[in-house]
Amino acid sequence: MNMLRCINVIFFPILKSGMLLFATTGFSQVKDSDSVVCSKFFTKALGSNWVHGKLEVLTKYYPSRLCGTQASLGALDWSEKCLIEAGADTVFRQSLLVPSWIRGNPEKAEIITGKKSERVTVCTLGNSIGTGKQGITAGVVEVKSLEELASLGKEKVKGKIVFFNLPMDPSHYNTFMAYGGAAWQRTRGAKEAAKYGATAVVVRSLTLATDTFPHTGVMRYDTAIVKIPAFCISTLHADTLSARLRSEPDARLFLYSDCLTLPDTTSYNVIAELKGSIYPEKYITIGGHIDCWDNGPGAHDDGAGIAHTIEALRLFKETGIRPRHTLRFVMFMDEEIDQRGAKKYFELAKTKNEIHVAAIESDAGGTTPIGFSADAPDSVFTKLIEWSTHFKRYGMYQYIRGWSGVDIGPLKKLGTSLFGLMPDSQRYFDYHHSGNDTFNQVNKRELQLGSAAIAFLAYQLDKYYE
Amino acid sequence: MNMLRCINVIFFPILKSGMLLFATTGFSQVKDSDSVVCSKFFTKALGSNWVHGKLEVLTKYYPSRLCGTQASLGALDWSEKCLIEAGADTVFRQSLLVPSWIRGNPEKAEIITGKKSERVTVCTLGNSIGTGKQGITAGVVEVKSLEELASLGKEKVKGKIVFFNLPMDPSHYNTFMAYGGAAWQRTRGAKEAAKYGATAVVVRSLTLATDTFPHTGVMRYDTAIVKIPAFCISTLHADTLSARLRSEPDARLFLYSDCLTLPDTTSYNVIAELKGSIYPEKYITIGGHIDCWDNGPGAHDDGAGIAHTIEALRLFKETGIRPRHTLRFVMFMDEEIDQRGAKKYFELAKTKNEIHVAAIESDAGGTTPIGFSADAPDSVFTKLIEWSTHFKRYGMYQYIRGWSGVDIGPLKKLGTSLFGLMPDSQRYFDYHHSGNDTFNQVNKRELQLGSAAIAFLAYQLDKYYE
Repeated sequence: MNMLRCINVIFFPILKSGMLLFATTGFSQVKDSDSVVCSKFFTKALGSNWVHGKLEVLTKYYPSRLCGTQASLGALDWSEKCLIEAGADTVFRQSLLVPSWIRGNPEKAEIITGKKSERVTVCTLGNSIGTGKQGITAGVVEVKSLEELASLGKEKVKGKIVFFNLPMDPSHYNTFMAYGGAAWQRTRGAKEAAKYGATAVVVRSLTLATDTFPHTGVMRYDTAIVKIPAFCISTLHADTLSARLRSEPDARLFLYSDCLTLPDTTSYNVIAELKGSIYPEKYITIGGHIDCWDNGPGAHDDGAGIAHTIEALRLFKETGIRPRHTLRFVMFMDEEIDQRGAKKYFELAKTKNEIHVAAIESDAGGTTPIGFSADAPDSVFTKLIEWSTHFKRYGMYQYIRGWSGVDIGPLKKLGTSLFGLMPDSQRYFDYHHSGNDTFNQVNKRELQLGSAAIAFLAYQLDKYYE
Repeated sequence: MNMLRCINVIFFPILKSGMLLFATTGFSQVKDSDSVVCSKFFTKALGSNWVHGKLEVLTKYYPSRLCGTQASLGALDWSEKCLIEAGADTVFRQSLLVPSWIRGNPEKAEIITGKKSERVTVCTLGNSIGTGKQGITAGVVEVKSLEELASLGKEKVKGKIVFFNLPMDPSHYNTFMAYGGAAWQRTRGAKEAAKYGATAVVVRSLTLATDTFPHTGVMRYDTAIVKIPAFCISTLHADTLSARLRSEPDARLFLYSDCLTLPDTTSYNVIAELKGSIYPEKYITIGGHIDCWDNGPGAHDDGAGIAHTIEALRLFKETGIRPRHTLRFVMFMDEEIDQRGAKKYFELAKTKNEIHVAAIESDAGGTTPIGFSADAPDSVFTKLIEWSTHFKRYGMYQYIRGWSGVDIGPLKKLGTSLFGLMPDSQRYFDYHHSGNDTFNQVNKRELQLGSAAIAFLAYQLDKYYE
């Protein structure tokens, strides 16, 4: 099923004016050549343990590498060494200011019913304020929509903890669709509940698994609305809390967190380049984000994207392919809180009038790739569909329009064609933003199929664009 | 991406001879109806934890359920209860004799270099004889092909342990292709080495992972050739052994196993039926194998296939769809050693002149399904491609011909159309036939996509066949 196509160079020896001509059918040659290049990328990726081993180091020594932390700076140093070892022509940094939100001591939460109390697993959401030293103890109102919250009104919400408990819809094949339908609870829950006088919010973790891992993520306040602490609760304990509230509506919840926001601090994007042989001043960017949430090793989110990016560089070196455009391999900082790395990368590109023809992001995990998304003109999307012939040999059949990635997103304003790797999403939210996002969940082969797919897409883009 | 297609019933009110006719385009109506049924199967599967929980019980209480063991009989009882709970009309057994190969006490293996010895992880292959109480200590010759073995000849092989160390080729996208290229070492290694006077063989485990799990599996002797013990060694320790042999060619290996073969014993296939409403005497079989190797819980191989089968039955009941043909849900016994369950199922079908129109097997794990294989006439394969429109909504794009499954294979002689579920194969051999094939490696959603795919394929076959 996976045999290399033979290289069918059509050979026309023609005697003419005493000269022997060797003609090849240009189109066929290019097709076959692409097929062979594709096989090389995938074969070399699948045969190598290198970047999987590097990912093990990243997750072991630099877990919890949220922007602003020492771990995130250590991860940058690690990434520089990897990029140099992979064969970068140059590696440099872009300095930027990043938020510095600190979780503090482990959070506590207890359901109090009568004289009994029951511990549940929670964590604060990124950007949240803390509860103060005494914590917050209050009654709980459970809702599954903003309409339900509004119908309760100030009378029933004031002084209470609002418990947003809308599960992600499991019927979606694409779990990002399920995430999209429930994520408002995390991002907007606190400010919506605060309008009605709530003292805190607890949000059901955004995962389709039923377990005890709380899944954090960013939340936003509104400057016009009072800030209240925002927590997420594991799905298993969300079910527990809901059951307790049904049997004992007067059950109260105790919440404690001493998280806080410090002043912005200096951090960096790390960028490696392979210089273009023909268009050195035109760029194709490949990237992932080096930061991850502070409650886990960030193996899939986005250790895998970082591994894909570093390995794509190594694959260009190992196959001996010198790109025509300059390829940039970018470790974006601060995707998780305020996307400052993405903003800085765009800002500098714009200031310097750089030409960015294309960009590829990997920020959806390290499982088996199933295709690419593209935010690009029709002509480029048509080429992507053409190239899919090669990708299909490695199981990638799905090509959709209109989405790429958070870190490369701003480049759209420069007319850049944007692509996002789409791995199989079934397991992704089991890990996402939680302590369950561990190295052992990343399969070497699944990871490497992604690395090769990105490298080969970059190769095709490099060949296609002038 | 996963929205139900609207049901486009085309409505032609035609006044003719005073009669109001309501015409619908039959084809379109059928298509839309299939689309809705497909969504129902997948939505109900993705929304249910039931069979995933059952699989946890199977793997926890009935691991190592090789045919002939008490565990395998316990698993049969478990399966009957599950099939009844799922809503079977009837559940019955087919009695058969199965091999009874016993591993015995844990195997031992040590690399001996000078006065030092080093433990390595091995296990005997299924069907192997033991080493005797003293074990076997001998020098080792490493080979990667039968040609290499032949070139060494009796002179260099006699009295030695032959170490077959050809790794699976990682460059294949489909890991079953990689398995196919290396499996001869396990199945034929012992009899080939015995021809040259070897005392035992040690075979590199058939996995693409590098770890300390030995991966067992069946081996075969030739009655004309002396039997020698056959072991597999973990890939990590195969690399260790190879390295030691390079630096110290006189290194010896100590092997111990007291495995043995007892007389055949009685066991069963367990079969549940949903009676057909129109063709009760024509059968569509869905099945997996209830036995697994004795060195692990058999979660993917083939706990997942058993879960798919039981859940397919539950999905028919939950959707309220009564099949036209009788659906059989079969727990095949003894796939791993001699396929006696498959043989018995076929033999009885033939004896009773049963009409088996189609059969679907799941024996490639519980990861995300990517398509189906089919061993069926052109007309049926064409229908499968037509139905793939529905499956593609759930990521299943790959349809290949010529392969189905070991347990349903014999039915081909009855003219039955055979289908095999194809899950993503990247991780499968990390688990296959080893202690690593554990419940926590089976993701609920990935498993349930497979269950729904099988149920919906059965639905389409039931609708298509007369």
